[in-house]
Amino acid sequence: MMYQHGGDIYSHPGYLDFSANINFLGPPASVLEAVQAAVPEMIHYPQAGNQRLCRAIAKLEQVGEEQVICGNGAAEVIFSLVLAEKPKKALIFAPSFQEYEQALRSAGCEIVYEYLRPEDNFQLKEIPAKLDDSIDMVFFCNPNNPTGILTEGIMMKKLLERCKETETLLAVDECFMDFVPMNGQRHASVKKFLKISDHLILIKAFTKSFAIPGLRLGYGVIRNAGVLKRMEAVTQPWNVSVLAQEAGIAAAEEEFFLEKTRQAVTEEKQFLLEQLAFLEDKKRFFIDIYGHAANFIFFRSVSGLGQELIKDKILIRDCSNFPGLCEGWYRLAVRSRSENEYFIESLKRIEYWKAEEEHE
Amino acid sequence: MMYQHGGDIYSHPGYLDFSANINFLGPPASVLEAVQAAVPEMIHYPQAGNQRLCRAIAKLEQVGEEQVICGNGAAEVIFSLVLAEKPKKALIFAPSFQEYEQALRSAGCEIVYEYLRPEDNFQLKEIPAKLDDSIDMVFFCNPNNPTGILTEGIMMKKLLERCKETETLLAVDECFMDFVPMNGQRHASVKKFLKISDHLILIKAFTKSFAIPGLRLGYGVIRNAGVLKRMEAVTQPWNVSVLAQEAGIAAAEEEFFLEKTRQAVTEEKQFLLEQLAFLEDKKRFFIDIYGHAANFIFFRSVSGLGQELIKDKILIRDCSNFPGLCEGWYRLAVRSRSENEYFIESLKRIEYWKAEEEHE
Repeated sequence: MMYQHGGDIYSHPGYLDFSANINFLGPPASVLEAVQAAVPEMIHYPQAGNQRLCRAIAKLEQVGEEQVICGNGAAEVIFSLVLAEKPKKALIFAPSFQEYEQALRSAGCEIVYEYLRPEDNFQLKEIPAKLDDSIDMVFFCNPNNPTGILTEGIMMKKLLERCKETETLLAVDECFMDFVPMNGQRHASVKKFLKISDHLILIKAFTKSFAIPGLRLGYGVIRNAGVLKRMEAVTQPWNVSVLAQEAGIAAAEEEFFLEKTRQAVTEEKQFLLEQLAFLEDKKRFFIDIYGHAANFIFFRSVSGLGQELIKDKILIRDCSNFPGLCEGWYRLAVRSRSENEYFIESLKRIEYWKAEEEHE
Repeated sequence: MMYQHGGDIYSHPGYLDFSANINFLGPPASVLEAVQAAVPEMIHYPQAGNQRLCRAIAKLEQVGEEQVICGNGAAEVIFSLVLAEKPKKALIFAPSFQEYEQALRSAGCEIVYEYLRPEDNFQLKEIPAKLDDSIDMVFFCNPNNPTGILTEGIMMKKLLERCKETETLLAVDECFMDFVPMNGQRHASVKKFLKISDHLILIKAFTKSFAIPGLRLGYGVIRNAGVLKRMEAVTQPWNVSVLAQEAGIAAAEEEFFLEKTRQAVTEEKQFLLEQLAFLEDKKRFFIDIYGHAANFIFFRSVSGLGQELIKDKILIRDCSNFPGLCEGWYRLAVRSRSENEYFIESLKRIEYWKAEEEHE
């Protein structure tokens, strides 16, 4: 069976992993130290209800402690939300993160798809008419995974307003927002609406921005106490491990790490984009660049590229199994300079265009 | 709000924790080392579907790899089972582990209680008539938490047979079975029925026996592929952290640790039981000992004992919030000799009987 996700380093030990969108700087020293120091504490149960961690996240997000729910990764928050609210009919945008669909299916929910299209550069151009009174829940990922598109604040506001009219719960997944430069972030994030909207939940994680996907730590922020209470009711009391709690508390204290991350990602992304454009200009490669608002680049190229890169021990994310995509769509994480250079060299080595030329 | 569980070391840092039933030996060195070595690996996603871990557990339990589902603690397995099967009506025994009830309530399931009574020493004397065709799911904990009662194999077989007749899914939680001496274990465990029963799921965890509650690692074993598939559908693909996976793989390789644990627990339990009997004989204390088949002792004593022990920085589990129990019921974990001695000394210091005498 094909592995359905990025990050399949288990079948490919020692490979360079461009397939998972993790902060290439790795976790800050404070987080690493907090986890190491917490190892002997694994002999105790985590604090049921994660109060200390909720407090740290509330401070970070400048919301009330009682508005925060922690999860075993953002994925658990998504599942808890769906299992708690039991939507009958939900709208999701495609292509996007696949766990919305899996969670909704597990609850027997009818799913309506709104396809984002390559001809629109995968942008949301207008609020779809199918978002009407019949829709109980909407998931929206911003910046979107895998398309790398940042939806602007004005469109997010429209989406939120429509959801208010239709009495729809809007779940906005901003797991990649920390990689967006601050001015874009302030403009696009729905964080500012959390204080006034009862039908909005913000989903975030430490996973990507603090490079701790293996620890599992995500959270939701919501003003609506009823939804939060129902989510807690479908969640076990010890859902976040002692180590993840300590990592999160340390991460929430980090003042400069995310800004440092944004600078490093921007610089390396620029390098990759320039190199890819160069290859394309020289007609050495067919590669169409799409969104890259976060720490990854979404592009279209020849089919079979992933398999070719594997020969050089490089993993990228083949996106052909996302609804709305097909063979030839890829997602590439931005990594360190030496790794990015190795990737570009591998592309050159592949000379895949030859096979393409033979087809012509 | 009263903390609803044992192990509230977060409000009581530095206290001796007799309230959580964890192996007092702590994790074996191999598990500790595996976790420490895995800390830098937290930059990777866990393997989706936990294949390596499932394989290790399958070998340990001598079942097929495809029969194993891993969880973020046994608690997640319990929730996944209920959310997957959506029972309309379930039977649970009381008092018992409270997460069965929480999980069933979260799924809107009607709950029927069968009370185990002090006059029967909390033993299951016969299969209750209320376990009929209307019951979709039964949870049974063996040895039972908090009563410490081991239900014999002949009664488990009867329970399983009735469940077959009534087409009821039987979930047997054997999280404390590893603490029972091998001959008792072989006799009482439902493990031997896993190969022939489609309506049986065994739930276990590394939490208690390997002293890693803070890491979160449990599992289910079931022959019925349909149930397993539905459980997977309501579970995120990365539910077990990288560190917990490595801990589990190392734990599954440990050949002698559990036997060493059983010997140490038996010895220390004997010490505690003798000391408690001595206090009782001397009429220095009102204490009625009930079940102690696992690594904890269930007893009845004066109300307010927990609060008195807290003054000596000792936590025990006040069981008054378990359905079927009331004030005066306690659960005491077996710990190391020096800790057990400190506990006994504290009991002597409290001289609680004086207050009781004043009441008489």
